[in-house]
Amino acid sequence: MHTAPIETDALIIGAGPVGLWQAFQLGLQDIRCHIVDALPQVGGQCVELYGDKPIYDIPGIPRCTGRELIGLLQQQVAPFAPQLHLDQTVTALQALADGRWQVQTSRGQSLIARSVFIAAGVGAFEPRRLSVEGAAELDGHGLLHRLADPQALAGQTVRVLGGDEAAVQAAVQLQAAGATVSLMHRRDHFQAEASLLAALQQARTSGRVSVCIGQPTRLSRSGTGSVQMQWATPEGELREDSQDCVLALLGLSPKLGPIADWGLAMARKQLVVDTEGFATSAPGIYAVGDINTYPGKKKLILCGFHEATMAAFAAAAQLRPERKVPLQYTTTSSELHRLLGVA
Amino acid sequence: MHTAPIETDALIIGAGPVGLWQAFQLGLQDIRCHIVDALPQVGGQCVELYGDKPIYDIPGIPRCTGRELIGLLQQQVAPFAPQLHLDQTVTALQALADGRWQVQTSRGQSLIARSVFIAAGVGAFEPRRLSVEGAAELDGHGLLHRLADPQALAGQTVRVLGGDEAAVQAAVQLQAAGATVSLMHRRDHFQAEASLLAALQQARTSGRVSVCIGQPTRLSRSGTGSVQMQWATPEGELREDSQDCVLALLGLSPKLGPIADWGLAMARKQLVVDTEGFATSAPGIYAVGDINTYPGKKKLILCGFHEATMAAFAAAAQLRPERKVPLQYTTTSSELHRLLGVA
Repeated sequence: MHTAPIETDALIIGAGPVGLWQAFQLGLQDIRCHIVDALPQVGGQCVELYGDKPIYDIPGIPRCTGRELIGLLQQQVAPFAPQLHLDQTVTALQALADGRWQVQTSRGQSLIARSVFIAAGVGAFEPRRLSVEGAAELDGHGLLHRLADPQALAGQTVRVLGGDEAAVQAAVQLQAAGATVSLMHRRDHFQAEASLLAALQQARTSGRVSVCIGQPTRLSRSGTGSVQMQWATPEGELREDSQDCVLALLGLSPKLGPIADWGLAMARKQLVVDTEGFATSAPGIYAVGDINTYPGKKKLILCGFHEATMAAFAAAAQLRPERKVPLQYTTTSSELHRLLGVA
Repeated sequence: MHTAPIETDALIIGAGPVGLWQAFQLGLQDIRCHIVDALPQVGGQCVELYGDKPIYDIPGIPRCTGRELIGLLQQQVAPFAPQLHLDQTVTALQALADGRWQVQTSRGQSLIARSVFIAAGVGAFEPRRLSVEGAAELDGHGLLHRLADPQALAGQTVRVLGGDEAAVQAAVQLQAAGATVSLMHRRDHFQAEASLLAALQQARTSGRVSVCIGQPTRLSRSGTGSVQMQWATPEGELREDSQDCVLALLGLSPKLGPIADWGLAMARKQLVVDTEGFATSAPGIYAVGDINTYPGKKKLILCGFHEATMAAFAAAAQLRPERKVPLQYTTTSSELHRLLGVA
């Protein structure tokens, strides 16, 4: 899918807490933005890695979970309605002759932005790849790492690998779509919402999903074109079987991805920024949150909030060089009240 | 009153939002602290200037008043129980030979600290002085700017100047203590809690408080030792009367005070700091929040939160040079959970 490029004053890469706060602070500067994120929902690490775990060091919030913090930030940024482009990574970033930046996403969206804010945290969260002998050769050809459309596998035999919510959900959806599913996990214990676990149990009882306890050890292509899997039982016995395809849902892991190839100054895999406006070495590109580095840098969410705020002021000066950027207070400024919709 | 010096690892000057957050971040570093503030309660500008006004730009808190923010921060810092020294200003700061800092307060308290955090905002809030002809000469001798003990003025004639809560409360307290009170304000409109306004009305009706509508224009000492006041009615007529004392309660205004005399590097009345640990030019002294300056500085509460966090890391390295300061997360660190009391 290729659509016409979107032109925007500001593009944020990453919809974690710092990316959302970047959008809020740009909003206070009356700058509208688009946000790209690899995950299908906002929240980044906060939701992916500690959605239900408590955070105690957000100032003024004695305790909240990662998911709760994201909910609060979404509520806060809502008046500025950032345009979200989820479930896609930025694959390319390129300088245009007029000083703007052209960005491509993995879904074929092109955006042309006057300022870019890299709030990509530890990188884009991507499916963890199955790493056994033969897996790399079959990746994308019989070995899948995400389930885009269960209907596309109707009538096929599918081995689902994994023990958490994504794997359980895929097994339930695939059998409902008419696939023959074997769900493989190293032990007979699955983590998912109660309703999903009940649906899995029902599918097992009725024979529409079988469960294999074990771990894959090798993949290969059989003579008939199906995927041959060698796997080990908990006792260490090796077995072998084949299916039309293998769907490995082994969780997500962050990847820095192509950011390292964009020619920006880096130090130990972090983007080097100044502490005045959190600008990178490229004009118009800022980096905030866990992805940047400067003397004393601490990878804390609250530091990212500060960085994004300073970057918004710097970008306002960049985007509107003709006028001074005043410091206004949300408590007293009628202009900020108008922007926030609280007038 | 002079008491024995208190020895501490950390002393914070200022109990506003950033001072409280400084105490929280020091707590996470397992460093206990004392806090000195000029006001009789914590909160600084947040309570004094916008206690009931909304703030919209604290990350994760879509809307709160200044007083609510302070309440949340007090709750958050509670596990670390900072020792408060309220209603007193820091009058002197002096280097000791062993590298520590000795601090004196206006109540005669002496503290010796290994690290000092100046979180003094726009300065110490002090009573706004009456500035009419003759006032300076009588200041402290017939002209008062705070009411320490209403009983001390029993039996005297007292003119209270002011129209807000402090003035109304003083008038009510003084008449209850047996003083003869005349409350002077430029118009017959007073701002205070409903119960206080009702008490004032009752005292006016019963003749124990009279109200003069006008503004003072000159003070002098009469031959009998009482305070002679010339004042103007709203129509511009000049009148003259005398009383035993004048209590001017004209609100609070911030004063930078002696900080400018401590030999720290300053720029445009702000303390110059680095952005790595927010250290001033004196070893062991840090400055955070509205009182500091560095390239790009924005006087925003959320920036002060970042600065205090970085200063806590820097101070931990200063106070415990023998060990590395690790970055731990409140979500996962059992040591931080123990310090927070959430284990």
